[in-house]
Amino acid sequence: MTVTPLSPTPRSTVHRGKNRAVTDRADLHAVLDAGLICHLAFLCDGEPVVIPTGYGRDGDTLYVHGSTGARSLREAAAGSAVCVNVTLLDGVVYGRSVFHNSVNYRSAVIHGRATQITEAAAKLHGLRVLTEHLAPGSWDYARPPNDKELAKTALLALDLGEAAVKIRTGPPVDEDDDVAADAVWAGVLPLHRMWGEPRSCPTVAGRHAVPEHVKSRNQA
Amino acid sequence: MTVTPLSPTPRSTVHRGKNRAVTDRADLHAVLDAGLICHLAFLCDGEPVVIPTGYGRDGDTLYVHGSTGARSLREAAAGSAVCVNVTLLDGVVYGRSVFHNSVNYRSAVIHGRATQITEAAAKLHGLRVLTEHLAPGSWDYARPPNDKELAKTALLALDLGEAAVKIRTGPPVDEDDDVAADAVWAGVLPLHRMWGEPRSCPTVAGRHAVPEHVKSRNQA
Repeated sequence: MTVTPLSPTPRSTVHRGKNRAVTDRADLHAVLDAGLICHLAFLCDGEPVVIPTGYGRDGDTLYVHGSTGARSLREAAAGSAVCVNVTLLDGVVYGRSVFHNSVNYRSAVIHGRATQITEAAAKLHGLRVLTEHLAPGSWDYARPPNDKELAKTALLALDLGEAAVKIRTGPPVDEDDDVAADAVWAGVLPLHRMWGEPRSCPTVAGRHAVPEHVKSRNQA
Repeated sequence: MTVTPLSPTPRSTVHRGKNRAVTDRADLHAVLDAGLICHLAFLCDGEPVVIPTGYGRDGDTLYVHGSTGARSLREAAAGSAVCVNVTLLDGVVYGRSVFHNSVNYRSAVIHGRATQITEAAAKLHGLRVLTEHLAPGSWDYARPPNDKELAKTALLALDLGEAAVKIRTGPPVDEDDDVAADAVWAGVLPLHRMWGEPRSCPTVAGRHAVPEHVKSRNQA
């Protein structure tokens, strides 16, 4: 199978599990929009470090943010190479052999160099995108950031130009001999994310109802 | 607050959000045991790459595996530095200000150099640990790996000696002025993982019941 990559570089071309590679940019966007947090990898003293962090997408730009005091943001903001992965785990695949146990998943990986956004309007825009990704409806509901808070927050932008997506769905792919032997069950145990009941902060309880953007948040 | 790290190196000592650092090795084990997949970061041509992958823990050893043909495993197996992160997202925290929006989570990060396990008994042990982490009960139920499958599988071991854990729980931590203003709701929207109904592989349907280790898998 020939896979046309989302981007033309060798490292963003899927080599392993080519049948799981997808090549439509809309799939990249869909995976990023479905995730809640990303994993950001960067170099620190020449060695790889990976941390979880919030993000948001606007077109083909991915925003990540963090404290201006955080080592990760300082490293990434310096223009060195970073890698971001967003993975959704959709189920555990039980094969007839342990070798064919697997997982169903959607995974996007992005390579690039991040740009620090410092211009006021652009920074507010990026922070809005990020906030609305993790907590839709919050930006217009809660108090916006003040100058002191903005100064404490570093915002990075990463272009989605160099990216790859892999998606696995469906039942196990077992050996013909194992299927013919018909010795055991095989199948998939799906995994879902579910929002629970909102828990009001003790200091507001009773005085403000849970707002619609929280109460009616769509199951992801 | 002084935080005694799980390990004594500067990079595994939590600097940001020290109030979220935990120092008990049992907490590290608990986070790793609760996760399903990890994110593995390594260097490729001098730049960071991060991919999701399965893992398992035995004592203070973390196992990861993959195809012997995979670039990630070749890089990591060569003894270069790697970093592993396991993060569980437990909820979205809605503050009275967007600056204090946050997430509740449990996150473990491990630094080290991986060792490739090639000795037959040790490799089978590691693969059992890994299989039983992702799909408990599978190792004794499904067909064990044959020599050809073992040859295709690379197994890496990583010592948990250099690690850090951060855990955030509870309501938002808002500014006193915002709490006093009492203008909006604040709280937490919990996020849960739920197993769905097992889906039998079409080629077994009807001939084998869903086994107990799949049917009764505990909610994670």
